[in-house]
Amino acid sequence: MKEDGREFKIALLGFGNAGKAFAALLWDKLEEIRKNYRCSVLVTAIATGSRGCLINENGLDLTRALNEIQERGHFAAENPDASTFTSLEIAEKAVYDILIELTPLAIFSGQPAIDHIEAAFHRKKHVITANKGPIAWDFKRLRRLAESQGVKFCYETTVMDGTPVFNLVEDTLKLCRVTAVKGILNSTTNFILEELTKGRTYDEVIAEGKERGFVEADPSLDVEGWDAAAKTAALLNVLMDADITPDLIQRKGIEGITTKQLREADSNGKVIKLLCRGMIQNGAVVGSVGPEEIDKKELFASISGTSSVVTITTDLMGPVSVVEHDPEILQTAYGVLSDLIRVIA
Amino acid sequence: MKEDGREFKIALLGFGNAGKAFAALLWDKLEEIRKNYRCSVLVTAIATGSRGCLINENGLDLTRALNEIQERGHFAAENPDASTFTSLEIAEKAVYDILIELTPLAIFSGQPAIDHIEAAFHRKKHVITANKGPIAWDFKRLRRLAESQGVKFCYETTVMDGTPVFNLVEDTLKLCRVTAVKGILNSTTNFILEELTKGRTYDEVIAEGKERGFVEADPSLDVEGWDAAAKTAALLNVLMDADITPDLIQRKGIEGITTKQLREADSNGKVIKLLCRGMIQNGAVVGSVGPEEIDKKELFASISGTSSVVTITTDLMGPVSVVEHDPEILQTAYGVLSDLIRVIA
Repeated sequence: MKEDGREFKIALLGFGNAGKAFAALLWDKLEEIRKNYRCSVLVTAIATGSRGCLINENGLDLTRALNEIQERGHFAAENPDASTFTSLEIAEKAVYDILIELTPLAIFSGQPAIDHIEAAFHRKKHVITANKGPIAWDFKRLRRLAESQGVKFCYETTVMDGTPVFNLVEDTLKLCRVTAVKGILNSTTNFILEELTKGRTYDEVIAEGKERGFVEADPSLDVEGWDAAAKTAALLNVLMDADITPDLIQRKGIEGITTKQLREADSNGKVIKLLCRGMIQNGAVVGSVGPEEIDKKELFASISGTSSVVTITTDLMGPVSVVEHDPEILQTAYGVLSDLIRVIA
Repeated sequence: MKEDGREFKIALLGFGNAGKAFAALLWDKLEEIRKNYRCSVLVTAIATGSRGCLINENGLDLTRALNEIQERGHFAAENPDASTFTSLEIAEKAVYDILIELTPLAIFSGQPAIDHIEAAFHRKKHVITANKGPIAWDFKRLRRLAESQGVKFCYETTVMDGTPVFNLVEDTLKLCRVTAVKGILNSTTNFILEELTKGRTYDEVIAEGKERGFVEADPSLDVEGWDAAAKTAALLNVLMDADITPDLIQRKGIEGITTKQLREADSNGKVIKLLCRGMIQNGAVVGSVGPEEIDKKELFASISGTSSVVTITTDLMGPVSVVEHDPEILQTAYGVLSDLIRVIA
């Protein structure tokens, strides 16, 4: 199977919706990757929090892994690759070249994802993360560690799934300096504000969002702006060379916004959206999250439902906006795949 | 001046607004390019249609060239680098590594830009073009020629200035297949339709557009959709592997749109925009340009004045939209500079 002797072994931490979708997409694209990039890719470990763990340095049977989770909700005890390793033990001890961090977000610390990533870097392994915690809480230190170890650190999926945001700036806006960012980056609040405007109640809206899968069991982290603050911190750390954390983002949620306010804005030709902003003030990068009134004629007013947008302003290209429309889980999986291509290409 | 022995000599064909802005930007960034990419860049030839020509294989004095054009409207006869070469002679005979094609667009043929580019490729020189003619009329043949000669062919600026469109797909959407494109890509018609809706007359609007510099002396190529058709052909040729020309794009201009229609659409919550579309029909790539009604809540309705948008739909990332806001000449210059970085990096 090897071509030119290049082979990349992947350890997957986390096998929820994103992990499963990535595994399925990777399986589908293995042959194309082999052909286009002259290398073979195999998954040698999958760790989950409560659904078991698989390890095989010669490559796991991905189809079997997906089927077991699908049918039983956990890896089978009789799977020959079953293991009792934890995620951290996988990061520290398993045989792999690339660690893919897809564990659940811990929004107030970025842990234990930061420890997983650090363990990989200490072993001189590349890291791809779709978990924004480490980028929001500890980016500069992790990036320096990756550089000093001579390995790659990729995180496109942490903001707007696979939509090019970080790679857009790095690959296609060379020599440009980012002077400001502005975005609508939280689907839950975007959806709630729109539906409340239509006259529905908060409880109705939350129930629908949960059923459709994009509102968390506890929506307070979204509603209070913490998710948006974490994304803003990630944007500022990567794109504006900040060293900021979510708690340092000036944050206001939508919990105080009433249907009356939304209706009033509506009748004045405006909508209320939760906006993320980053800019330079007195030489320092500052960020904020908060509800703002936007004229209905503006681009940001058109970003509805689970769509999102970021406007990146640079010295040479002025403002450029990128919009993701109604993403599904495939777009998250693709983000991880696109980072994988960056590592192996 | 040389570092690592790498030196790139540039021949500039065309020294209008874009050429001058590029020369000024390049001058400003020379030191940064030298530092970041460990190479030196110098301009060894500048050709114009009617304002003279300069050649010096050791590098022209760019500041002097810019000043002469600024002060006299043409290169000075006493400039020691003055020459009588034509653009084609520069392409064929001057000493350079990279040809930058910035001559005026000939929308019905792509000439003489195609001949300039071909001459460079035959000499195994890299080509950057901001002139969309060659991409709209003869892309496949030129790309094959570049490949067979082992040189680079870059054309980001041909659609939406320096906004990442072609590079977006090539660099950041790897493994994705483009299945459709949709855009608002002609400023003149976008501006006319908006202003007519406000009740102004066609003549007033055209006069203002000319004064502001984005409406041509003869606006008919814009109004009849030819400019949009050329951009659509360029998008389809590059992104969807088509082999199409502007005359094969199904084309309808805005000349038949009346103020009454615009007002009626407006009162129905809609706007009329000139839309470019490309898609796959029965296995073949087809393109169209024509006015369409758009709901005011949609993203495309928010694209006003000289702003533009393209939505690129791929199999793996769904639709992703990129918006350029109120571009000026610096954004064109940056597009050429970003292609230059692709060649030298």
